Amino acid sequence: MNAPSPAVRIMQRLEALATLTADPPRLTRVFLSEEHRRANELVAGWMGEAGLVAQVDAMANITGRMEGRSVGLPALLLGSHLDTVRDAGRYDGMLGVVTAIECAHQIGAGALPFALEVIGFGDEEGVRFGSTLLGSRAVAGTLDLKVLDLTDQEGICMADALRRFGLDPDQVTAAARRRADLLAYVELHIEQGPVLERAGLAVGCVTSINGATRLQVHLRGMAGHAGTVPMGARQDALVAAAEAILAVEQRCSQEQHLVGTVGRIEASPGAVNVIPGECRFTIDVRAPQDIRRGRAVRDIRAAVADIAVRRGIQSSIAVLHDSAASPCAPWLMQQIDAAIAAQGITPQRLPSGAGHDAMAMAAIADTGMIFVRCAGGVSHHPQESITVEDAQAGFETLRRFVRNLDPAQRQP
Amino acid sequence: MNAPSPAVRIMQRLEALATLTADPPRLTRVFLSEEHRRANELVAGWMGEAGLVAQVDAMANITGRMEGRSVGLPALLLGSHLDTVRDAGRYDGMLGVVTAIECAHQIGAGALPFALEVIGFGDEEGVRFGSTLLGSRAVAGTLDLKVLDLTDQEGICMADALRRFGLDPDQVTAAARRRADLLAYVELHIEQGPVLERAGLAVGCVTSINGATRLQVHLRGMAGHAGTVPMGARQDALVAAAEAILAVEQRCSQEQHLVGTVGRIEASPGAVNVIPGECRFTIDVRAPQDIRRGRAVRDIRAAVADIAVRRGIQSSIAVLHDSAASPCAPWLMQQIDAAIAAQGITPQRLPSGAGHDAMAMAAIADTGMIFVRCAGGVSHHPQESITVEDAQAGFETLRRFVRNLDPAQRQP
Repeated sequence: MNAPSPAVRIMQRLEALATLTADPPRLTRVFLSEEHRRANELVAGWMGEAGLVAQVDAMANITGRMEGRSVGLPALLLGSHLDTVRDAGRYDGMLGVVTAIECAHQIGAGALPFALEVIGFGDEEGVRFGSTLLGSRAVAGTLDLKVLDLTDQEGICMADALRRFGLDPDQVTAAARRRADLLAYVELHIEQGPVLERAGLAVGCVTSINGATRLQVHLRGMAGHAGTVPMGARQDALVAAAEAILAVEQRCSQEQHLVGTVGRIEASPGAVNVIPGECRFTIDVRAPQDIRRGRAVRDIRAAVADIAVRRGIQSSIAVLHDSAASPCAPWLMQQIDAAIAAQGITPQRLPSGAGHDAMAMAAIADTGMIFVRCAGGVSHHPQESITVEDAQAGFETLRRFVRNLDPAQRQP
Repeated sequence: MNAPSPAVRIMQRLEALATLTADPPRLTRVFLSEEHRRANELVAGWMGEAGLVAQVDAMANITGRMEGRSVGLPALLLGSHLDTVRDAGRYDGMLGVVTAIECAHQIGAGALPFALEVIGFGDEEGVRFGSTLLGSRAVAGTLDLKVLDLTDQEGICMADALRRFGLDPDQVTAAARRRADLLAYVELHIEQGPVLERAGLAVGCVTSINGATRLQVHLRGMAGHAGTVPMGARQDALVAAAEAILAVEQRCSQEQHLVGTVGRIEASPGAVNVIPGECRFTIDVRAPQDIRRGRAVRDIRAAVADIAVRRGIQSSIAVLHDSAASPCAPWLMQQIDAAIAAQGITPQRLPSGAGHDAMAMAAIADTGMIFVRCAGGVSHHPQESITVEDAQAGFETLRRFVRNLDPAQRQP
């Protein structure tokens, strides 16, 4: 009997992980749950088979290490997260962990001029405690320990959840790694968007994890009877919002990789026969470069203010969220491109619109990301899917990248 | 001691009616309630003082009649409604009843070439049973008797509510009047809009009660991650709705007296970081002429369809409501204008964007309406207000109109 191909084994392992769920047949696996423990055990077994020495760190992340040509070299850290959203797909996060283990398996110990480590972060999605990237922030040493007081829906605080998991919340800082011990952090992940599918490409190289600004806009005009107030005498907050929504679209369509979205809107009083006196809506703006995002946000704020003034409407804008872009390291991107090209695939660079553990890891290491095409760009949904051929291309990209990486290429 | 001026007495009576409420200090008086009974009693007393012979009809409307130069002449019917919305102002409806009684008082019996009647309809707002114009539709003979089965929030059906009020639901049809017995129906009402205030005029003559079409629009695009889907690859249902909202405004601003309103909107899934895959919103279009409303609705439907097709979005439009315009009779408008001009006020004609009892009465009589300026156009709100001077102008308009009306002017 032949051994299965790497991609087939990757897909089988993703199936196995998908059975570890709090609400079958749906897949929901949150931080520090019983399913999390079982996922760590399953992954530890695969790590052992691959020649990785596994251990669970102080934040319940599982890490496996394989030494390079000598013991104690700085490590190339590969990985992603093992937790899921509620009613999740089976590729988001897990694909990166399982593919990295398979790479280690194929390469073997003692072959590389650096150590190879694989990590499965325990929390990236933030479902249980409402705060994201808990695992990678602990590893990066950037976790604010106040998060230990956050409680889940059942009132259990994170510190108690760590204790129940067999860990000591006072030791969480021990999960932090030192910059000197890491050569780089490289994460393989499904794209969660339609760019690669539209380009007809199995894999791509991420340039940057987009920074994001989220605004809450509040417009206050004058409510009135839909039948009695002439068009020219209105201060309709919803019509002003409609102009603003189109202004967001128009501004963000001017530049590649800039995106802007109004996802939530509420007009009040909200009756068929009443002119909306107030309207609240959100604006989400993302770009690979902070300077471009900043310019877009500034222009959008000015457009909203202009529309409001012209319509005799009061406007206020609050910043809900503001995070900087996390650019990938050029030397890692060059090597990822080379690994893609070596398979006869056109190298394609694209930003990541979604957040990833690499954002947190950027605090202590150069980061790189490989995206794998997913059907229809669908993610955070049971219909999330990839083909076995694309899983193979992802594996092969990561394997070639690791095999050919030379620490001397690292830029100072 | 001098008798109070008509306007002062009108304002005093409005104060008295405002005390008959189900939830003091707010004013809420619904059909067939104890407060309705007490309002009828109060109004009956004032009618008696004015020389009107009062009686409550089979639908709990109160009517007072004063004979003209001979007994049994066709009646000029004046009036409006005595019910209110919840937390109402004190002028909507009641002003027309109280002013009409005051006119009858000043004119006296036997003075006119027609009988004079004043009616206080028991239901116009439809608050209790969710169906409007119950009083005037009963008088017009157009009430569908199925409404007797409608229930209020406490599960009491209208038939039982009539019984509790001392009336026989089987006799409701007896409230219907014959066309031959009515010379015309004329209603004085607050404007409930800002047109007279902006024109600096105390009173105006209504040309038509606008017809109305209400549409429910449903747009279906594609939901997606706000960070990962490029602007050019989106099928954002909310952005399409925004274009449609501006198209409604643009189309309805092209013609005087045409109005269009999007009052309710819902975008789903409604998360800050998700592109809206679906959007539902309402469109309310009103115009004094049905043909103009029809053209506007047709253009708006076409605009929505065009926007949807251009954006790759599915659209469907359902008609929620469609009512014809109710034009006022030219011979009554001429006489109302004359009564206004006689006071040195510039006659101003304007449509009514809101519905009124005159819409129902148009089924059996020529109708006319006099609007009185109200502060800021505010109505259906405790801040609804008019000045005593404007109440006097309204009274004087109605009095002169009645005093000078010649049945021979009636157009065939």
